[in-house]
Amino acid sequence: MSSGEPLSALCSPALVVDVDKVKRNAQRMMERCHQLGVQLRPHMKTHKTLECADIMTGGSRRCIVVSTMAEATFYADHGFDDILYAYSLPFDKVERCAALSERLDLFQVLLDHPDALERLRKRPLKGGRRWHADGVELTGVYAHCGNTYNCEGVEQIQAVAQETTSFTLQFMEKLKAVGISCRSSIGSTPSCSHPVPDMGKLSEVHPGNYVFYDVQQSVIGSCALEDVAVRVLTRVVGHCPHRNQLLIDCGWTGISLDGAGKLPSGYAMIEGHPDLKLLSMTQEHGRVEPISGPLDCSKYPIGSLLTLIPYHSCAAAAMHPVYHVHSEGRLMGKWTPTRGW
Amino acid sequence: MSSGEPLSALCSPALVVDVDKVKRNAQRMMERCHQLGVQLRPHMKTHKTLECADIMTGGSRRCIVVSTMAEATFYADHGFDDILYAYSLPFDKVERCAALSERLDLFQVLLDHPDALERLRKRPLKGGRRWHADGVELTGVYAHCGNTYNCEGVEQIQAVAQETTSFTLQFMEKLKAVGISCRSSIGSTPSCSHPVPDMGKLSEVHPGNYVFYDVQQSVIGSCALEDVAVRVLTRVVGHCPHRNQLLIDCGWTGISLDGAGKLPSGYAMIEGHPDLKLLSMTQEHGRVEPISGPLDCSKYPIGSLLTLIPYHSCAAAAMHPVYHVHSEGRLMGKWTPTRGW
Ligand SMILES: Cc1ncc(COP(=O)(O)O)c(C=O)c1O
Ligand SMILES: Cc1ncc(COP(=O)(O)O)c(C=O)c1O
Repeated sequence: MSSGEPLSALCSPALVVDVDKVKRNAQRMMERCHQLGVQLRPHMKTHKTLECADIMTGGSRRCIVVSTMAEATFYADHGFDDILYAYSLPFDKVERCAALSERLDLFQVLLDHPDALERLRKRPLKGGRRWHADGVELTGVYAHCGNTYNCEGVEQIQAVAQETTSFTLQFMEKLKAVGISCRSSIGSTPSCSHPVPDMGKLSEVHPGNYVFYDVQQSVIGSCALEDVAVRVLTRVVGHCPHRNQLLIDCGWTGISLDGAGKLPSGYAMIEGHPDLKLLSMTQEHGRVEPISGPLDCSKYPIGSLLTLIPYHSCAAAAMHPVYHVHSEGRLMGKWTPTRGW
Repeated sequence: MSSGEPLSALCSPALVVDVDKVKRNAQRMMERCHQLGVQLRPHMKTHKTLECADIMTGGSRRCIVVSTMAEATFYADHGFDDILYAYSLPFDKVERCAALSERLDLFQVLLDHPDALERLRKRPLKGGRRWHADGVELTGVYAHCGNTYNCEGVEQIQAVAQETTSFTLQFMEKLKAVGISCRSSIGSTPSCSHPVPDMGKLSEVHPGNYVFYDVQQSVIGSCALEDVAVRVLTRVVGHCPHRNQLLIDCGWTGISLDGAGKLPSGYAMIEGHPDLKLLSMTQEHGRVEPISGPLDCSKYPIGSLLTLIPYHSCAAAAMHPVYHVHSEGRLMGKWTPTRGW
């Protein structure tokens, strides 16, 4: 696949990333945070690539969140620093966390249990370094506000954002009252897409999904459908008029099983075909049927392309060993994510 | 991780493969086919590794089925031959199929539509070669008998196996009557685990999942639960007594979302804990609760190991960039699958 070719030159299924939308989503989040006066610490879990991390950090390669030690190591190996591992310290990974803490300027771990503090104390860092966490060198307080995912509309999102912010700020006051001052970080994609002014009183926010967005985020109200930067390209590979169905070459290896039962259009939205539903999938096939009424197979010749907008871009991206990046439908290159733990 | 270490030395989540069970499952299938007098053509889609393919082919590296061109190329690059690409010829991959057909002794493609035949005719092979498919050089007739997946118990499985076999043999007779003689291949893991004698009249069978098996296969009746050769190791990472739940470090990136709503124990079985249920998952966390009654968190200290038996081993394996192989709980090495399309 050479650069400049149209998306239709790709074999399917393929995850395609609209780099202009990625840049726009990233830019808007940076501006929003700048206006609020809060530091943005973007989460890498949705894409797990260097290229997208560069866009999200404005090229600084500083101040990121990761969900796995595989990501932490991958980013550290490529010159990233100030990495926050947003996972309550897993006891099997203390040694790997110690190694990164000794190697990076700043590696932050989360503690949510006194036993975890004990584990850190049992593994003192070399070179006079201290663990950056809650309780050893208490760096800050971290909350996700994942309950924004139950919201519909900006009003509900902002109510949850306000509540989480208020709780966090009250907690910071209590810490201050006993002589502890440290940083505070909250945020999900919904709350950071529609922040409340009080979030400016926090030290930082840590959304991640916003760089791609997805159908779920558009249903919640975090974004418009046109902001979604990823698609899964698929082709019609069979006609099943006896079942009123099309077969496509995207199964659960191509888009994941996330979103079951959530959308009238099934496991994804089919761009430009609001009348179609991705009903079910096997490993390498999807079954598509009309939401109602009979299917006219002749409108979907074998080999023709369909474009799926993922319900959950984190889950869809996790199925792909490579993402195909384009600008206005012209291929620009590939991004390769890290995987594993 | 050095060889000989116990499974508990692994960071979690981790997909672990019991190589003795893999060999036993493979051996039994080879013997069963030998007794029936039918050629075994094992499917690679469940594991996608060289090591497991060697075990399934008894080291011959001949006569396999694949589900993607990525698999086909991977196996061809490593000396495998007589590869059947069990996917109705995708029009975007004709050139890649042609390249393998020109390079291997035998590369077989499937046709299920007259348009596909046209596509092959438009791309004649070099070096005097002919396409091996239905219709160009008609090699055989292929059926999967995926409807065995709706069965429960050997009797139902064998009824479907008999029906598919009879239909296929009748069809072969019809072909013969018009002067066409070719091979026939059917089979799923359920039907090949409990074959009917008539299957001996077919040329070959092509099951795949049997090498790992899984909870789904044990529910269908293809195997006993103790035949399942794969597990996902996970650790307790949190106690949520207010929700009567444990948090584990296996989310959908570790075991997939396959099996939703199928088992009383949720998305998997938790080995040795028939009272527990894997209720739901996020990207890197699972929520475990008792099937009924209150949870005694003190029985599951933070950091303790739990072992998940996957509902669908193909789907669980697809989430892992590497499998950890052991014999009697001692680590032997790693298998690296191919991914993509
Ligand atoms: C701990 C943690 N922090 C931050 C985020 C980023 O939030 P979002 O995915 O809404 O952007 C997540 C997402 O799951 C998370 O689990
Ligand atoms: C076309 C085809 N052939 C063979 C198989 C192997 O069957 P099983 O997974 O039951 O072993 C499959 C499985 O999905 C298949 O799709």
